[in-house]
Amino acid sequence: MSRFVNQNLMQITEEILASYDMDPKTQRIGERFLPSRTIIVEILEEIRRLIFPGFFGHKMLTPENVRYHVGNLIIQLSDRMTEQINYCICSSKVCGKCHEPTVCRQRADQITHDFIRRVPEIRGMLSLDAQAAFDGDPAAKSIDEIIYSYPGYYAVTVYRIAHELLLLGVPLMSRIMSEHAHSVTGTDIHPGAQIGKRFFIDHATGVVIGETCHIGDDVKIYQGVTLGALSFPRDERGRVIKGLQRHPTIEDGVTIYANATILGGQTVIGKGVTVGGNTFITESISADTTVAVKPAELKLRSKKTK
Amino acid sequence: MSRFVNQNLMQITEEILASYDMDPKTQRIGERFLPSRTIIVEILEEIRRLIFPGFFGHKMLTPENVRYHVGNLIIQLSDRMTEQINYCICSSKVCGKCHEPTVCRQRADQITHDFIRRVPEIRGMLSLDAQAAFDGDPAAKSIDEIIYSYPGYYAVTVYRIAHELLLLGVPLMSRIMSEHAHSVTGTDIHPGAQIGKRFFIDHATGVVIGETCHIGDDVKIYQGVTLGALSFPRDERGRVIKGLQRHPTIEDGVTIYANATILGGQTVIGKGVTVGGNTFITESISADTTVAVKPAELKLRSKKTK
Amino acid sequence: MSRFVNQNLMQITEEILASYDMDPKTQRIGERFLPSRTIIVEILEEIRRLIFPGFFGHKMLTPENVRYHVGNLIIQLSDRMTEQINYCICSSKVCGKCHEPTVCRQRADQITHDFIRRVPEIRGMLSLDAQAAFDGDPAAKSIDEIIYSYPGYYAVTVYRIAHELLLLGVPLMSRIMSEHAHSVTGTDIHPGAQIGKRFFIDHATGVVIGETCHIGDDVKIYQGVTLGALSFPRDERGRVIKGLQRHPTIEDGVTIYANATILGGQTVIGKGVTVGGNTFITESISADTTVAVKPAELKLRSKKTK
Repeated sequence: MSRFVNQNLMQITEEILASYDMDPKTQRIGERFLPSRTIIVEILEEIRRLIFPGFFGHKMLTPENVRYHVGNLIIQLSDRMTEQINYCICSSKVCGKCHEPTVCRQRADQITHDFIRRVPEIRGMLSLDAQAAFDGDPAAKSIDEIIYSYPGYYAVTVYRIAHELLLLGVPLMSRIMSEHAHSVTGTDIHPGAQIGKRFFIDHATGVVIGETCHIGDDVKIYQGVTLGALSFPRDERGRVIKGLQRHPTIEDGVTIYANATILGGQTVIGKGVTVGGNTFITESISADTTVAVKPAELKLRSKKTK
Repeated sequence: MSRFVNQNLMQITEEILASYDMDPKTQRIGERFLPSRTIIVEILEEIRRLIFPGFFGHKMLTPENVRYHVGNLIIQLSDRMTEQINYCICSSKVCGKCHEPTVCRQRADQITHDFIRRVPEIRGMLSLDAQAAFDGDPAAKSIDEIIYSYPGYYAVTVYRIAHELLLLGVPLMSRIMSEHAHSVTGTDIHPGAQIGKRFFIDHATGVVIGETCHIGDDVKIYQGVTLGALSFPRDERGRVIKGLQRHPTIEDGVTIYANATILGGQTVIGKGVTVGGNTFITESISADTTVAVKPAELKLRSKKTK
Repeated sequence: MSRFVNQNLMQITEEILASYDMDPKTQRIGERFLPSRTIIVEILEEIRRLIFPGFFGHKMLTPENVRYHVGNLIIQLSDRMTEQINYCICSSKVCGKCHEPTVCRQRADQITHDFIRRVPEIRGMLSLDAQAAFDGDPAAKSIDEIIYSYPGYYAVTVYRIAHELLLLGVPLMSRIMSEHAHSVTGTDIHPGAQIGKRFFIDHATGVVIGETCHIGDDVKIYQGVTLGALSFPRDERGRVIKGLQRHPTIEDGVTIYANATILGGQTVIGKGVTVGGNTFITESISADTTVAVKPAELKLRSKKTK
C-alpha cells in the first residue's frame, strides 16, 4: 500500500469522517439498506427467461421438462423479488419513516405475486412488439434474431416490465431496471411513459422518451429521437411544479425518423403522421401529415475554387 | 419467497405455460440450443488478445514466450469458436431444418479455420485504423492509448472482426458481436457495411452505420453521425423489399462532423467532401465540396428587454 | 476444437507471429505491463463507496462501525491504487523509457496519498452537483435516487474523480475511468475539461464535452449536447497542433437544451444564456440571451391529397 497513506492513516480517516458529518445528503450511515442493483439486474434477466423460454438461460427446454423449469424459476424469482421489493419500498422516501417492517414485507409479498400474475399479459404485448420490429426492419432475418439480439427490443422489453412495477408501486426498482436498459442500449425510456401496442425502436441509440409521454399503437421510432419537455411550469416561488404532462402525445401509426426532437406537454402528433429526420417540433401536427425539414438549407462550397 | 405466490404456485405456472402454447413466436421449447452471448463476447476478447498481443489479457509477453502463448490461444479460441459457430449456423433459420448435425459441425470447423487464417490481414487493417486515429485526434497521446482505451477504435475493431464472420457465413455471431460493441460504445456499425482503410470514428457516441453502406478509404466520422436509410422500397403487397442498397456511399477522404445525417441508397458523398455538423443530406454531393448548414439561422432574444 | 486448425496449427501460429514482427505498433511484446482496466474500474467503485458511504457496497453502516469501515476501505483502496498508478505512469509514453522502477513506485505512493486527501473536497463538489440535479429535474423524487441511479450524476462523479487524477499526473488512469463512464452512460466528458460547481446533465445520452472546455458554475445540459472542436489549427507541415483551446467556454448559469452543438475554442456562451434544442453554434453569444432555432422551418404535406 501507499507508504504515505499508511503514515497518515488515522488523520485521513478522521478527515473523511468529518466530511460525512458535515454533509448528511451524500451519506446513508445508520439508514436502512438500499436494494442491490446487481440483484435487481439478475431479477430482470430471470423475468426475461420466464417471458422468453428457451431464448435466455442455459436449460435445454422440451415440452416434457418445461413445466418443472417454469415452476422452479417462479419460486426462485419470487424469492428474490420479494426481498428486493421490500428494500425498495422500505428505503424510499415514500416509506422511509416506516417502523413496521412486517407491513412493508407483506406489501412486497403482494406486489411480487401481482407482478408474476401479469407475465402472460406482458408476453402478449412483447409478442406484438417483436412482430412489429420484424415487419419494420428490412435487415431483420427472423423474429428469433430480434428477441435475441436487438437492443431496441431489449429496451422495450425492460420498459414493459418496469412500467408494470411502477404501476404496482415500486418506482425505485422500475427506475433501476430502466437505467440498466439505458446503459446497455443508449435508450432512455422513463417507466412512467404510456406506450401502446406494436412499438418499435430501430437502432436504439440516443433515444429519450420522457416520463409523461403518451404514445399510441403502431408507433415506430429511430435513433436519436427525443420526446422531451419544452420548459417546466414553475410555482410562484420559482420551483418546478411536479406532476403535469410535460412530454408530447404521439397518436396511433406515427413514424418518427432519426434525430427528430418533439417537445412539450401540449404537443400532439396526430394519427398517421410521418415526422422526418432532424426536425425540431414544439407545436402540434394534425393527423395524416408528413413533416420534414425544408430541404437544401445547405451551403456548398467547392474546395477547388479556394 | 412470496407467500401469495407460494399459495398459487400451480395455478400461476399453468397460466404461464398456457401463454407459451398460445404464442409460439416468443418461446423456443423443443428447439435447438441458441449460441451463448456470454461465450461469444469472451471469444471476441480472445480474438482481440490474438490481434493485439500484450495489450489485453494478463500474460507478460516476451520474445521467448510469445510463440507458446499464441499457439495456446489459438487452440483455446478455435475450440470455443467451433462450438459456438455450430450453434449459430444450426439455430439460425438458414439451417433450422437441418437434421444432419455433423454437416453443420464440419462447416463450423472450416469457418473457424478460415477466420483464424485471416487474423494477419485483419491486423493489417487495424494497424492502419490505429494510425488514422492518432493522426486525426489532437487529444491522442500515443497509439497505445488508442488501442487500449478509445471506444471508436473498439467499435472499428469489432466491426472488422464481425464483417469477416459475416462474409464467412455466420451472421448471428457477427450480429451478437456488433450489438455488444454497440452496447459498450454507443456506436452501431452493421457488420454488413463495407468500410475501407484508415477509418476513424471520434467520440463514438450515437453513430449509426447501416447494413448497405459503402465507405471508402480515409474516412473520418464524429459522434452522432447517421448513415441511414431514407425510405424502404416496398413490393406490390406493401412489404419492404429486402436486399437493395438502402444506405449511402461515402467516397475516399470524406470527413463527416458531429450529428450529420446522410440518408438513402442513391446518395453519394464524393471524394474529399467535408460534411459540416448537424447537416441533413438526402442527395448526392459532388467531389471536393464543403457542405455546411447555413449559418446564423438562429433567433436571439435578450432576456433583459422582456 | 477445429480439426482444420489442429492440422495447420504450427503454420497458423507462425503466420500470426510473422504479422507481429511486421507491425510493432499493434503489439507490446517485451514491454512493461499495462494497467488492468478491470481493476481500475473496481478502484473507481471503491472510491465511490468512500465518497457515498452506505449507498454502494454491502455493509450496513452505523455511526459505531463507520470509522472501521472507512479505515479499512482506505487501506484496501490505497494498496490497489498505488499498484495501478505505478503501471499507468510506467507504461505511458511519458515514462516509457524509465529504468528506475523505484522512482515510479514512489511517485505512485505520493499520488495515491494526495488523491485520497482530496476526497473530502470532491465530496463537497458532488454534494452541490446532487442538489443541482434534484432542483433541475421535475421527475426526481429524492437526492438518494439521484446518487443511486442517475446516469448523468454517475458521469459527473467519474469526471470529478478522473479530473483530479489527471491533475495529479495519471492521464491513463483518468482516461480509463472516463471511458468506462462513457460506456456506461453514453456521456463522454474528457477528464481535462474544467467544470464549475452545481453541474447537471439530464438524460445523459450522447453528450460530448471536449478536453479544453471551460464550463462555469450552475450549468445545466441535456442529452445529445456536443461541446466540441470546430477545426484544428495545423502547423506548416499539416499536422494538428496539440495543446490549444479547441472547445468552447460556457459561462455561469447557462442552460443548453437537447442536441445543441457548440463548437470552437473561440466560442464563448455568456452568463445566463439559454441555448435552445437542436441549435448549431460556432460563434459567441453575449450574456443573458436566449438562442433558438428559427421555428417552423418545416415542410408540411397532407397525406390525403396525394
